[in-house]
Amino acid sequence: MDNSYQLIIVGGGPAGLSAGLYAARARLHSLLIEKALLGGQIVNAETVENYPGFPEGISGVDLVSLMEKQALKYGLETAIAEVQRLEIRGDDRILVTSEGEYRARVIIVAGGAEHSKLGVPGEEELRGKGVSYCATCDGAFFRDRAVGVVGGGNVALNDALFLTRFASKVSVIHRRDELRATKVLQEKAFAQPGIEFVWDTVVEAIEGDSQVRQMRLRNVKTGEKSGMEVGGVFIAVGVRPNTSYLQGMLDLTPEGAIKVNERMETGIAGVFAAGDIRAGSPRQVVCAAGDGAAAVMSAERYLSSA
Amino acid sequence: MDNSYQLIIVGGGPAGLSAGLYAARARLHSLLIEKALLGGQIVNAETVENYPGFPEGISGVDLVSLMEKQALKYGLETAIAEVQRLEIRGDDRILVTSEGEYRARVIIVAGGAEHSKLGVPGEEELRGKGVSYCATCDGAFFRDRAVGVVGGGNVALNDALFLTRFASKVSVIHRRDELRATKVLQEKAFAQPGIEFVWDTVVEAIEGDSQVRQMRLRNVKTGEKSGMEVGGVFIAVGVRPNTSYLQGMLDLTPEGAIKVNERMETGIAGVFAAGDIRAGSPRQVVCAAGDGAAAVMSAERYLSSA
Repeated sequence: MDNSYQLIIVGGGPAGLSAGLYAARARLHSLLIEKALLGGQIVNAETVENYPGFPEGISGVDLVSLMEKQALKYGLETAIAEVQRLEIRGDDRILVTSEGEYRARVIIVAGGAEHSKLGVPGEEELRGKGVSYCATCDGAFFRDRAVGVVGGGNVALNDALFLTRFASKVSVIHRRDELRATKVLQEKAFAQPGIEFVWDTVVEAIEGDSQVRQMRLRNVKTGEKSGMEVGGVFIAVGVRPNTSYLQGMLDLTPEGAIKVNERMETGIAGVFAAGDIRAGSPRQVVCAAGDGAAAVMSAERYLSSA
Repeated sequence: MDNSYQLIIVGGGPAGLSAGLYAARARLHSLLIEKALLGGQIVNAETVENYPGFPEGISGVDLVSLMEKQALKYGLETAIAEVQRLEIRGDDRILVTSEGEYRARVIIVAGGAEHSKLGVPGEEELRGKGVSYCATCDGAFFRDRAVGVVGGGNVALNDALFLTRFASKVSVIHRRDELRATKVLQEKAFAQPGIEFVWDTVVEAIEGDSQVRQMRLRNVKTGEKSGMEVGGVFIAVGVRPNTSYLQGMLDLTPEGAIKVNERMETGIAGVFAAGDIRAGSPRQVVCAAGDGAAAVMSAERYLSSA
């Protein structure tokens, strides 16, 4: 097996698929490595309304399927492997993975970000037993049950709105008295009678045996503690860039995002980053896709000047 | 007429329409000003194959129509006016236009770029009489005629390929012996028997009376001069950012592109730039659309922090 390429992309979400499309069309011998399924976080979105070109909206799964089809059409290769390490050997950039080594002149890191955890008792133990990080995936299991959504951003409100289709009641638990979410989503959520907002409140523990039974809550202003009976807890408190294998190698922010300049160049020549994994990413599908294209155009310049 | 908004976007191409979509969804009272028709340069593309999400390709006109429909759906307002000047009065940013003044807290400049000229005798005089900057628009007028295409980038080769449908012969005149265009396009063009390449050659003049009759050529290596009989000359030698009204106001590159940081901020607070008009733009539809979204997210932060 020859594992040598001109360009390797790590990550199969919108940034990686857009990079793959551009790389394949530039006739670079290119590989996209993904550890599981193509698509990235956006596959959890039931409807994407803000990717320009789809006025009626499109599901996250359908959108990335279209992107994948388009990249494969021009000859992008893909492989399933978990990347464990990046090494530099002269002009070669080596990815050490669960399936062996891959080498290329150029690496585009586009591995996205993962859901942050609350870090409270019961969260880990009850994961899959009522604790979920993906309302679209798991919402239908909670028909006629009360559920909690933890967070105050776009993802939290999208989750809450989606869950009203199934749940008897949706309680949004937010640690502040103001939402980060975009106005149009706030208006939708406030207008939805099935959604209740619990302000200034944090989850201290999730309790249950075979299934989530209740959340232990604390009001951060009054200190008052309470319990809330729910069948499910959906956690939407942010994301963490998938860069653990790059620590010490690339310049990262305290949150773990890769620092890049406007050409998507990292501190290492021939290594570029794109999408939610990079510092300052607006975390929008169209921005990630733009990053992927920009990274390949920078990579082309790097390859032709080297 | 109340011409006050929270946010005004100048330019109705992919960057402006994406910004408009994001601004409208953020429930900002927003206006998009365009001097003529919505769409930008991309409306000249018969097929866009590299905008992620459209594996079969889509015409430039159809793509921007979808983007426009999507932005209008969420309440974006639009106006036809030519912007003549940007003024700063305290927290207000004022656009002086052919239709009067518009004011807003935030301006997003997304006016794109225009075709560069060769600057040779006959070019201006014979414009519309065989000299064209838009093969998609004018190609069909040259059925069974020989035509020249001047340039060596993606646009030049796309034009040449398109013109083979009509013209009896297409000659690509390029001043170097190597193309800038992406490999997949080069391969297509080289494989097309209707296209001839004339390397290391510049156009010195375009001649004709009521219609283009010939190009005067000069080989830059040998100095040899020649004439080539053609019915049309398609000029595809690059673009110039539409920033003449911003000179002295914003920090521009020598080419006239607006300097921004990765948050699309210009040197003036509350003024952002997006798309082909900004320095370092990869000049791709998906990058322009990503810029537009990113500019609005920065604008939202600016408005909420001010």
